[in-house]
Amino acid sequence: MTESSRACPFASRRTLLVATAGLAGAILGRRAGAEAAPAAAPGPDRLPFRGAHQAGILTPQQTHTYFAAFDVTTRDRTELIALLRRWTDAAERLTAGETAAPLGTDMGQPGADSGEALGLGPARLTLTFGFGPDLFAHDGVDRFGLAAHRPAPLLALPRFNGDQLVPERSGGDLSVQACADDPQVAFHAVRQLARLAYGTAQLRWVQAGFLPRTPAGETPRNLMGFKDGTNNPVGDDAASVVWAGAEAPPWLQGGSYLVVRRIRIALEHWDRTEVDFQEQTIGRHKYSGAPLGAKDEFAPLPLAANDADGNPVIAENAHVRLGAAASTGGARILRRGYAYDDGANITAERWPPWRQGLEYDAGLFFLAYQCDPRAGFIRIFETMAKLDALNQFTTHTASALFACPRGVAEGEFIGEALFAAT
Amino acid sequence: MTESSRACPFASRRTLLVATAGLAGAILGRRAGAEAAPAAAPGPDRLPFRGAHQAGILTPQQTHTYFAAFDVTTRDRTELIALLRRWTDAAERLTAGETAAPLGTDMGQPGADSGEALGLGPARLTLTFGFGPDLFAHDGVDRFGLAAHRPAPLLALPRFNGDQLVPERSGGDLSVQACADDPQVAFHAVRQLARLAYGTAQLRWVQAGFLPRTPAGETPRNLMGFKDGTNNPVGDDAASVVWAGAEAPPWLQGGSYLVVRRIRIALEHWDRTEVDFQEQTIGRHKYSGAPLGAKDEFAPLPLAANDADGNPVIAENAHVRLGAAASTGGARILRRGYAYDDGANITAERWPPWRQGLEYDAGLFFLAYQCDPRAGFIRIFETMAKLDALNQFTTHTASALFACPRGVAEGEFIGEALFAAT
Repeated sequence: MTESSRACPFASRRTLLVATAGLAGAILGRRAGAEAAPAAAPGPDRLPFRGAHQAGILTPQQTHTYFAAFDVTTRDRTELIALLRRWTDAAERLTAGETAAPLGTDMGQPGADSGEALGLGPARLTLTFGFGPDLFAHDGVDRFGLAAHRPAPLLALPRFNGDQLVPERSGGDLSVQACADDPQVAFHAVRQLARLAYGTAQLRWVQAGFLPRTPAGETPRNLMGFKDGTNNPVGDDAASVVWAGAEAPPWLQGGSYLVVRRIRIALEHWDRTEVDFQEQTIGRHKYSGAPLGAKDEFAPLPLAANDADGNPVIAENAHVRLGAAASTGGARILRRGYAYDDGANITAERWPPWRQGLEYDAGLFFLAYQCDPRAGFIRIFETMAKLDALNQFTTHTASALFACPRGVAEGEFIGEALFAAT
Repeated sequence: MTESSRACPFASRRTLLVATAGLAGAILGRRAGAEAAPAAAPGPDRLPFRGAHQAGILTPQQTHTYFAAFDVTTRDRTELIALLRRWTDAAERLTAGETAAPLGTDMGQPGADSGEALGLGPARLTLTFGFGPDLFAHDGVDRFGLAAHRPAPLLALPRFNGDQLVPERSGGDLSVQACADDPQVAFHAVRQLARLAYGTAQLRWVQAGFLPRTPAGETPRNLMGFKDGTNNPVGDDAASVVWAGAEAPPWLQGGSYLVVRRIRIALEHWDRTEVDFQEQTIGRHKYSGAPLGAKDEFAPLPLAANDADGNPVIAENAHVRLGAAASTGGARILRRGYAYDDGANITAERWPPWRQGLEYDAGLFFLAYQCDPRAGFIRIFETMAKLDALNQFTTHTASALFACPRGVAEGEFIGEALFAAT
């Protein structure tokens, strides 16, 4: 079965049937170019930009991210397309370790590139683009003639229990996730794209993140000190989780949906709790990463096991239980998040011990890919937002959903199939 | 000449004479322990914590920093000393890649370590401690019986032209600069010190920073795209710039003064300027890093050269001219700063083109060491703050000065000589 005819296993049957009946021709039509190799063979530090899928989704995680959401300020579809062409050209250059445009043309005019990544190499840079719901229709206005091609799942995420979202730091028409093994390379890449957007789109919100330099083969620890990602899908399983299939419009087949959540973690409270309480909250042992009651990090979760008192070994409200596919009707996502650290904020509490002082503005910049958010993050988090014991320590302050088009074939610009169809 | 009897070459003669007359005995008294080797030989990824000088000053820069200023909340000198003892013990363990305290004692109580650096190794972690002016006297109160031992230069920095300081993000009684090749290792270290300070001191403000992974031997570029640090002192020259000598009280001899400035750079404006304008502003070529009119990055600045029209090749208000020792009466500092990136803020301008949108909250987290700030940063920046063409693009939003005690001898705690003397 070819990838494009494969359906998202999590999409509803009805959606799938409609899609496969109406769009088979279009599906077949997009294969030829997508297989073309990049102009130069990538080295170990250079990842190909073009291909059947966008890089930066199944790509092994780099150590740093710089994420940006843009508002499109033009009302002109032609200008939007021109921007996506510029971004595509620049992204191909940047991921090859080159400047956004050739230098030497920039005396007497603003530079072709801001220059801070000169000499740093590609650093495994990937640039992953997404389209937000408002690009298709905003306040009922079909801004760019795309409304008919909005995929059904591409709507603002529902309001979840406990959400404390800052609107100015949520949403967006366009998204770019830059990931690299050097923070300056990731920042530089987004900055060039922002410069190329002058007059057409502008930054709406940004977020940097990092991962620890965990030895190869080990699971990185998050800022709560727990291994994070043990049960993340890998290989073909991950591919089946993330890539939209025949149920999606053609421009999105081989693409994915990105859910973004900025999650502050009250580390100053977490640090005052006992390790065994932390383990009960998560449902895993802190140091080994093994499920409670097990020794091996990768042991299956003993969701049915009870202790001597008849209580579940993994509590009903433990984080791992609520996230497990067994608890969510099989919902799956690929998490590709980063720790974030934006310093600290001044706080004053109205409850005992009426503490005044700094709270870390740090936590998890949650990024998750899936082939259908309704059967992925939304299904998982609707329950988790209500019940998860971890919610005592977490606050979601930003949220967004983007549809990330399939990969960019040779000669194409990102999302070209969407505009060609309309 | 031994290091401790050498004087800061930039200190005034009168200060020096007073110091050498009164404190010779104390100077000699501190040598025995300071030379002791650390318990285990450091590997390439582990830097020694104890020694004649604090690590993290002349240490080649790591790729990440996490800086924290603390307010001391106790009024009890004994508690302050106990904190410095706990910090010293923890710092020695953390820089060796160990947990802040041994694990295994933490079931049933808050953990000995928050755990997020487990398995990451030392990552070249250094922890550099400093004492702020208010530790010695605050609003005229000698809080801990230290006022008589405040070194004369340790006063709040003067207000400079253009300062836009946020008081809550400036100053502090105690400082810790954590530097490491892994951002999570640096964050983790400060977090453990904050936990060990519960009830005695609390975080006042923090700042993370990073450097690009520039190839060895090359000068890293800052976010303006220019090589930054070409003329930074190295080797013995750097040692003569940073280490306080006989003019300082004994606890500070072999220590240094740290000037901290958080400098936002208006990258969104900088990016709209022409490269040749940028070069005139800095006084160097952007791509090579060479002084204007020269080819080689390390060529001397042609401060006396004029062009065909009789104008200076390096403008009177160019950044490098104002910072050069020739313009400052020989003032020198060792810069050890990092780029910072705290995302972006919403802005609305009252001048044309009345732009609304995001401005980067990014720039330079300026950290500079010197043996006397009056003859170092203060002398340089008093002029620079008024005249530097670069000021059009920079805003100083945080400021602090700390005296960093000499290194920690075996069996000592950080700053012990200060408390022993009082």
